[in-house]
Amino acid sequence: MYRNAINQLKNHVTRNTLAAGSVRGQQTAAKLANQRPLIANEPSGPMIVTDSIPGPVSNSKLEELSQIQETHSIQLFLDYNRSLGNYIVDVDGNILLDVYTQISSMPLGYSHPDLLKLLNNADNVRSFINRPALGAFPGTDWADRLKNSLMAVSPPGLQHLCTMACGSCSNENAFKAIYMWYRNKERGPGATVTQEELESCMVNKQPGSPPYTLLSFMGAFHGRTMGCLTATHSKAIHKLDIPSIDWPMAPFPKYKYPLEEHTRENAEEDRKCLEMVEDLIHQYNKKGTPVAGIIIEPIQAEGGDNHASPEFFQNLQQIAKRNGSALLIDEVQTGGGPTGKFWAHEHFNLPEAPDIVTFSKKMLTGGYYCKKEFLPTQGYRIYNTWMGDPGKVIMLEEVVRVIKRDNLLENVQECGDVLMKGLNALEKQYPQHINSTRGRGTFIAFDGSDAAKRDAIVGKLKMKGIHSGGCGDKAVRLRPALIFQPHHANMFLDKLESVLSEL
Amino acid sequence: MYRNAINQLKNHVTRNTLAAGSVRGQQTAAKLANQRPLIANEPSGPMIVTDSIPGPVSNSKLEELSQIQETHSIQLFLDYNRSLGNYIVDVDGNILLDVYTQISSMPLGYSHPDLLKLLNNADNVRSFINRPALGAFPGTDWADRLKNSLMAVSPPGLQHLCTMACGSCSNENAFKAIYMWYRNKERGPGATVTQEELESCMVNKQPGSPPYTLLSFMGAFHGRTMGCLTATHSKAIHKLDIPSIDWPMAPFPKYKYPLEEHTRENAEEDRKCLEMVEDLIHQYNKKGTPVAGIIIEPIQAEGGDNHASPEFFQNLQQIAKRNGSALLIDEVQTGGGPTGKFWAHEHFNLPEAPDIVTFSKKMLTGGYYCKKEFLPTQGYRIYNTWMGDPGKVIMLEEVVRVIKRDNLLENVQECGDVLMKGLNALEKQYPQHINSTRGRGTFIAFDGSDAAKRDAIVGKLKMKGIHSGGCGDKAVRLRPALIFQPHHANMFLDKLESVLSEL
Repeated sequence: MYRNAINQLKNHVTRNTLAAGSVRGQQTAAKLANQRPLIANEPSGPMIVTDSIPGPVSNSKLEELSQIQETHSIQLFLDYNRSLGNYIVDVDGNILLDVYTQISSMPLGYSHPDLLKLLNNADNVRSFINRPALGAFPGTDWADRLKNSLMAVSPPGLQHLCTMACGSCSNENAFKAIYMWYRNKERGPGATVTQEELESCMVNKQPGSPPYTLLSFMGAFHGRTMGCLTATHSKAIHKLDIPSIDWPMAPFPKYKYPLEEHTRENAEEDRKCLEMVEDLIHQYNKKGTPVAGIIIEPIQAEGGDNHASPEFFQNLQQIAKRNGSALLIDEVQTGGGPTGKFWAHEHFNLPEAPDIVTFSKKMLTGGYYCKKEFLPTQGYRIYNTWMGDPGKVIMLEEVVRVIKRDNLLENVQECGDVLMKGLNALEKQYPQHINSTRGRGTFIAFDGSDAAKRDAIVGKLKMKGIHSGGCGDKAVRLRPALIFQPHHANMFLDKLESVLSEL
Repeated sequence: MYRNAINQLKNHVTRNTLAAGSVRGQQTAAKLANQRPLIANEPSGPMIVTDSIPGPVSNSKLEELSQIQETHSIQLFLDYNRSLGNYIVDVDGNILLDVYTQISSMPLGYSHPDLLKLLNNADNVRSFINRPALGAFPGTDWADRLKNSLMAVSPPGLQHLCTMACGSCSNENAFKAIYMWYRNKERGPGATVTQEELESCMVNKQPGSPPYTLLSFMGAFHGRTMGCLTATHSKAIHKLDIPSIDWPMAPFPKYKYPLEEHTRENAEEDRKCLEMVEDLIHQYNKKGTPVAGIIIEPIQAEGGDNHASPEFFQNLQQIAKRNGSALLIDEVQTGGGPTGKFWAHEHFNLPEAPDIVTFSKKMLTGGYYCKKEFLPTQGYRIYNTWMGDPGKVIMLEEVVRVIKRDNLLENVQECGDVLMKGLNALEKQYPQHINSTRGRGTFIAFDGSDAAKRDAIVGKLKMKGIHSGGCGDKAVRLRPALIFQPHHANMFLDKLESVLSEL
């Protein structure tokens, strides 16, 4: 089987090399030939067998499902039993290279052999089906499982955590940890809770329910439950008709690309946004709605892959500290390796750890890391029935092992270089179609010249066998798995070039 | 193996019969002898091997875990590989009969053989590890999976659904479905969304973010994310220090027990509470914060197993309809069979279905059923990355099959009768210790004479091998699995009688 895969790879490299007329081309075929495929028996490339995607089988399944569910957002029905590695197979038999990976939530792609093996273990099977209330009755090996998974990759300086089931619950509960921490500071050391607080909180009133706020950024996406959605400002369709709360919103820097040609303007943009942050904190504190915390993504993903400089984040942390607000970094989409470091905020060289870091998606389980002072000092304050799921943590343990064994962070860095170089070249060749390539690792986006162009690119890529996604108004976002290798990157670039040349 | 189990059962029945001096006794040994155990090789009874619970191994594991997590609410570490059926085994080797089942979330108890078999199937294994973004890329068999699981047990009159990962997300998203429905009614047929709405919602302002409210009940528990927590009023520790919103709260009926002796007072209690509901709706509508919906549990569980009559719920539905508010019944704890019907609200003979029914826990997946008019008419409005988890739905499919095959709803009814009769007898014998036995099916609670007495009962039951839980101020709640059989019920009653006799 392995020999087969090697042959497939060789064929692929040959094909790629033959297609070397491309402007971004001249990839070192020698280097590629040395690269072992990380997933044996992956398809050698995409294969499109229907005249349009979704094809007829997907369409008929959509109609069936529409009898039960709202299905407007469904794009394709996939055959997960046939999907493998970086390739998805749809129910019509189309094989697509997946650079979107379930909205960036598949760290090792599809049916990774090491994950499949997990369920040959009878104890693991029992863990999958005996889901405990983790906050009350964890299993024998829970501490070890956490040490081998989440704690083995904890962000520098953060040694405590709380597990949750999804990204929204992670942020919602991180908010609560921030409120309790803030209130404890207000109360002062040794102070006790008053009867008035205990009674007033039961009826949603002050002082038990204090009017704290969280500062978020325009363009942010932090989830869709009430607290999260109040901090979310990416698209109107997410927020329309939903009651909200008056929380401060600061502008997120909007950079000009290429960065090296706009250093001065971008630094000025940082300065203006940071000034606004501090103004808003003063303003909300003054009107009796103290800013208990600041929530920010290291890269605004859903909002359009908007980046800010390390200096911006360093200064933001200083502003938070100066004003007694907690700094929460939401790594739900950026965490788990796609930027080439395990956590995107590690790129920022912060002088100390952020107060809280939330995660989900590629981490398979939701939750947050935090400084010790953000752990509640009583039980049942940050709590729910499941508090996550050991089945996901067992899988994450294996994912972390594979990431280390296969040097996947290095792979991401290498692969990201190939993508960035290729995209920068294509951007120069087709400035009328794409621009503003930006990213870290393989967490990369580029803009179409407008929304229609972006949509056309995503659509045409699909018909050439590349499954990508959009974000923001006009960006194409790349969110491949950590097992996406340089030969996949080249295949993507070839197909994109072909799309751009036909636009 | 099966013969072994039969012998164990016979031994157990003999022991039970020998203990027949008890006041509630006279259980029909003949009937019990005919009952096949639903789980082969279950322990024949509890076995306590440590002087206290938690024992030394649990305590040392707690200390280890406390280095990583907040652990104040952790009661025991369990060995899930050795737990089976209705019995949990803790890390110290204590075997306990579990009538609490992970806060009521294990429909078939531990390591049910039919669930274990699921993961012998390679396709199922792939479904467990290839978790899709269900709202965009469902798997080949998704509609069939839903039909065989959630739709096979949908509440009468509700033919649509939305899957979510947990109870809080289910309620949060059900709230959003209600707001959208309410706003569409306000807009009127054919009206379009204005630019002002689209822009104002992005900054959390009216008219895009309308100031809708949801009416909830004192004593309610609906979860702990911001929207859910605003509707929750069970315990101060859940709400203290968390910002909240001014939403209307009505009193939930407080009944006197036994019900048959207090018919008039309890009917008057219903009337007063319902009057308050309608007053609050008028009041909040009038002040510009319209009550878009009413959320209520069929039985307030966390709040103390507070029941209300079918007439109360029938009238509540009429009030909701009269005032244009949606009626959301939160069946997160009551759903999935423990009341002897699949959904607790089926006991209420409502003239039509509630508008939305939320679920989680015993259903393994979260989500909600709804009337068609509560489905959004655009995509990405009720949405998140995972939208649930096919792995859980595959398990639920098997759970539903086993419930039907093994007539587990009948088992629950039969078992509930045994428990109710036994508890009523014990309540008469020990009126100084316990009172107010109430319940449907095996979803039963009784009160201790005060909080300390309740705590003593739960603690002493544990040392006799019964793992139960508290709720509200002074209630003991029983939440056994659906495979809890009359012989387990008798064992519980024997132990409880022994505890009460020693108090």
